[in-house]
Amino acid sequence: MKPVNLKQLAEELGLSIATVSRALQDSHEVSAATKERVRALAAELHYEPNAYASSLRRNQSKTIGVVIPKVTNHFFALAINGIEEAARQSGYHVLIYLTHDDYEREVAIIQHLKGGRVDGILLSVASGTEDITHLESLREAGIPLVFFDRVRAEIATAKVTTNDYESGRLATAHLLAVGCQRIAHLLISNTLSIGQNRHQGYLDALAAQGHAPDPDLVLPGTTDNARNVQLIEELLRRRPDIDGIFASVERLAVGAYHACHRLGRRIPEDVKVVGFSNLESVSLFDPPLTTITQPAHDIGREAARILLRAVEKKRPVLPTQSVVLASELVPRRSTAVAVSSPL
Amino acid sequence: MKPVNLKQLAEELGLSIATVSRALQDSHEVSAATKERVRALAAELHYEPNAYASSLRRNQSKTIGVVIPKVTNHFFALAINGIEEAARQSGYHVLIYLTHDDYEREVAIIQHLKGGRVDGILLSVASGTEDITHLESLREAGIPLVFFDRVRAEIATAKVTTNDYESGRLATAHLLAVGCQRIAHLLISNTLSIGQNRHQGYLDALAAQGHAPDPDLVLPGTTDNARNVQLIEELLRRRPDIDGIFASVERLAVGAYHACHRLGRRIPEDVKVVGFSNLESVSLFDPPLTTITQPAHDIGREAARILLRAVEKKRPVLPTQSVVLASELVPRRSTAVAVSSPL
Repeated sequence: MKPVNLKQLAEELGLSIATVSRALQDSHEVSAATKERVRALAAELHYEPNAYASSLRRNQSKTIGVVIPKVTNHFFALAINGIEEAARQSGYHVLIYLTHDDYEREVAIIQHLKGGRVDGILLSVASGTEDITHLESLREAGIPLVFFDRVRAEIATAKVTTNDYESGRLATAHLLAVGCQRIAHLLISNTLSIGQNRHQGYLDALAAQGHAPDPDLVLPGTTDNARNVQLIEELLRRRPDIDGIFASVERLAVGAYHACHRLGRRIPEDVKVVGFSNLESVSLFDPPLTTITQPAHDIGREAARILLRAVEKKRPVLPTQSVVLASELVPRRSTAVAVSSPL
Repeated sequence: MKPVNLKQLAEELGLSIATVSRALQDSHEVSAATKERVRALAAELHYEPNAYASSLRRNQSKTIGVVIPKVTNHFFALAINGIEEAARQSGYHVLIYLTHDDYEREVAIIQHLKGGRVDGILLSVASGTEDITHLESLREAGIPLVFFDRVRAEIATAKVTTNDYESGRLATAHLLAVGCQRIAHLLISNTLSIGQNRHQGYLDALAAQGHAPDPDLVLPGTTDNARNVQLIEELLRRRPDIDGIFASVERLAVGAYHACHRLGRRIPEDVKVVGFSNLESVSLFDPPLTTITQPAHDIGREAARILLRAVEKKRPVLPTQSVVLASELVPRRSTAVAVSSPL
């Protein structure tokens, strides 16, 4: 039998959900007679309070903090859902903090969280982060830390990522296999290891096919999307021989489409494009975008599970551990080999 | 002169940012000599501590809670950025709570926040919310509440929304103007006033052109996107006369595209589509999607400003006030009038 929830209890009793909830918490706002009715039915229907809701109500800490660069990137939106799924199962709740890729904000947030507001921290580092003293200090403060997606290798703790190197290699090898000769790489910040790893995969895939690296084909993106479209346009004008683009991050793939549309370069006939993306609607793009799709939800859930195990066991220092969940290349029309049209 | 930040101070002094930060906070972890050097340079370069960072460091409450249904909807991602902008300017920080459109979670979160964790609450209600006792109780608890986007009219407080009725009317009138005769409406939950208002706009635009309402053309979406595509497919099969679709929410517009693609219905030749959406990449869709675009960032910022004024003035009960920011119809190819091809 499916367990009843508060709403069903309330309906059965003809009371509001809030009243039922208060009655079960033995609130002084509810009469003794009503409490008795509520408890009797709850017992009869085997009502089990939702662990998540109960812990919130008891106002226990049971909280983990999630510190991420932004929510407008679909990867992070999906990862949050995975984190919340794991947290809910353990009766924890989740506070979300945004750094907006700003190092100072990351430092301030971490300092703040050291004050004991949370039992543990999941972090995807800001792209501007160089100094890591603030992260090292979490160990002294006894607050467990798990990295996901964007990690700092120097900090000994658990890290959950995708296979960034392999994905960069795969994306580039795919472009070579469909005939591209001059492949540009649109990079995210190169202080991030995920950017470095994806870039190394790109370089190694080129080398494996005897292509020398060409630094002129490597364009670091900025945080300004309109500026990125301009930069990509300038690159494509300067180097009309570019016939393939590998974008390390969703918004740069979108930028590449806009730049190609503006310049009248046809995708995939003139330029083939592959990009990291978790946007569900890429299959509706003109043409549908070939993607490296990250297991965003699973990365979030796995990182949260590892953190919650450490929190429950009161082990503030996690052993170094790397969990790597594989991304998937999903070929779509943006990298299709052109069929010569019969004239 | 642009004020220097912590990073610049640290570089100038050859110290880590964390050390400079601690020195300025008079931490016992930093030597007196170093503190002196840091303070001298900070004074010389007119360093002003970031208000947001300072309030976090002092571990003051100065926090507002944002309770929203989900982050995978781009509207909410952009609204959060607007909220954070206003909060940062006032030295507040922001905690984000997700209800996943689940009424029980909304109740639990609100109960929790009544414990004093935040100075005020910004809320966009879950689509399953019927009973509003939990929201009424915030008034007794002395915690100011401002609604944005999804509001409950019965609660007397400030509300920041877009012109939902007018947008629904405009979208439908646009479809009629480009020649549609049978216009389906894909609805979000009809317990939400935004859904009701958009639907009323649809009905009134039809009536204004002498079209009788046809309940068979109105499809309420579910929370399951794959299921929505099936439902839309079934509708289009059952009613092959449908030549226009108005989607009340982004993911239903995306679902309509998938359904049309699967059935081989051409957009805009066979079916024209308009949908609410804040997704930047709709202009890359095949064909680009005509949208009602909401001022999501501004809605978030305005709601936060109203809340913060109440918090700062210690006025827990806000007067009833409706701020309506207009959405914009952005016509793209999905509603273009077909040019008859010269054969």
